[in-house]
Amino acid sequence: MPSDAAPGRVWVPALPAAGAVLTLGEADARYLRRVCRARPGERVELADGAGGLARAVLVLDGTALTARIESRETLSRPHERRLLCGAPEGERADWMVEKLAEFGVLVLQPLDTARARWERFGRRGERFERLAVAALRQSLRAFRMEILAPLPLARALEAVPAGARRWLADPEGVPAQDLPAFDGPVAGLVGPSSGLTADEQALCVARGFQPISLARARLRTETAALALAARWDS
Amino acid sequence: MPSDAAPGRVWVPALPAAGAVLTLGEADARYLRRVCRARPGERVELADGAGGLARAVLVLDGTALTARIESRETLSRPHERRLLCGAPEGERADWMVEKLAEFGVLVLQPLDTARARWERFGRRGERFERLAVAALRQSLRAFRMEILAPLPLARALEAVPAGARRWLADPEGVPAQDLPAFDGPVAGLVGPSSGLTADEQALCVARGFQPISLARARLRTETAALALAARWDS
Repeated sequence: MPSDAAPGRVWVPALPAAGAVLTLGEADARYLRRVCRARPGERVELADGAGGLARAVLVLDGTALTARIESRETLSRPHERRLLCGAPEGERADWMVEKLAEFGVLVLQPLDTARARWERFGRRGERFERLAVAALRQSLRAFRMEILAPLPLARALEAVPAGARRWLADPEGVPAQDLPAFDGPVAGLVGPSSGLTADEQALCVARGFQPISLARARLRTETAALALAARWDS
Repeated sequence: MPSDAAPGRVWVPALPAAGAVLTLGEADARYLRRVCRARPGERVELADGAGGLARAVLVLDGTALTARIESRETLSRPHERRLLCGAPEGERADWMVEKLAEFGVLVLQPLDTARARWERFGRRGERFERLAVAALRQSLRAFRMEILAPLPLARALEAVPAGARRWLADPEGVPAQDLPAFDGPVAGLVGPSSGLTADEQALCVARGFQPISLARARLRTETAALALAARWDS
């Protein structure tokens, strides 16, 4: 592939065994041809989004592009990176989903709070999934961000894995850069654009979430979520 | 203003003297009323985007909302934060501009490179300005991000202020978190979605740009730009 082309990795729901031949979907074939400029005979990678990764050779079968699996491996799941996030304004959730997936967030838990609900989640679920898959392919990750259905704050807090370090985005909190480096499981929580109520904020702190400040100014919901994810991936 | 309302700050091209009364534009009046839920008699802030900041009281004049200036101050310009950025794909520049302004980048220098030009810059200039103003208001900053006209890489490099620490976004570079903290002037450079050529990369390094890695995976142009800006603002 030319040096300015994207390396070829696509997502497949299930990885066949070595030796098998997989017919690529139209969108993946187009992506590999046009964006990655991959040609028959060249190598690409297939990822199942759950750590399974295969190397394959592109083979033209009539007009269809197929991938012959050469080898397979399974990567172990990295430490949890879970983001609990209130509803951003308007259409801002779309790119937030894309960027969180690019930065390697493993689980996105949308939060319904007193002041804001993820009203559009149902209609946008499929689009979110497509964005997460495109981000995996783009950023060459082996794990696809899991996008959970919205939960009320209290229930979402209960579902945070024990042992995860817990951060609450809060302009009044400790500056993130003053915290010691940490390479274990993490959970972050960002309020909706209209903010958490004082009771909700107190509940989060009672559940072990430490208020931390992510920037020197006020950030929108989606911007704070992104600052957290970028920090975790640095 | 209610606790879940946005604090009221709007941008005005020029700040009048204390005592003067300024008639607010329709969009600013609507923002202050609807988003900040500010009422006549309440205090708001006006920023000129160049460090000038005024406190003012809202006064209803017939049906028009006006602001009576109570006091003025001038904040000193913070250290330079300049981002030289190749063209992102498609419509991605819009939200990149918004987020860079939210994170307090002071100067955005679009880069025309061998593989990609900012073709749409001319048509989008006004929209970019509106996004930068909205970000100032949203993030309560006193300085508006300056968006320069695109320059060829070599000329943009010449315009980087002497003394600025220089970072080049590069997945093969030193991890950003391994670098010592730094609070002086900075300049960052991010290639276009199709990447810099080897010659361009070498030119940047020759001009003192240190390759640094911003994440554990490959980032899109706009995502890398955002990771840099978030780090500078942390």
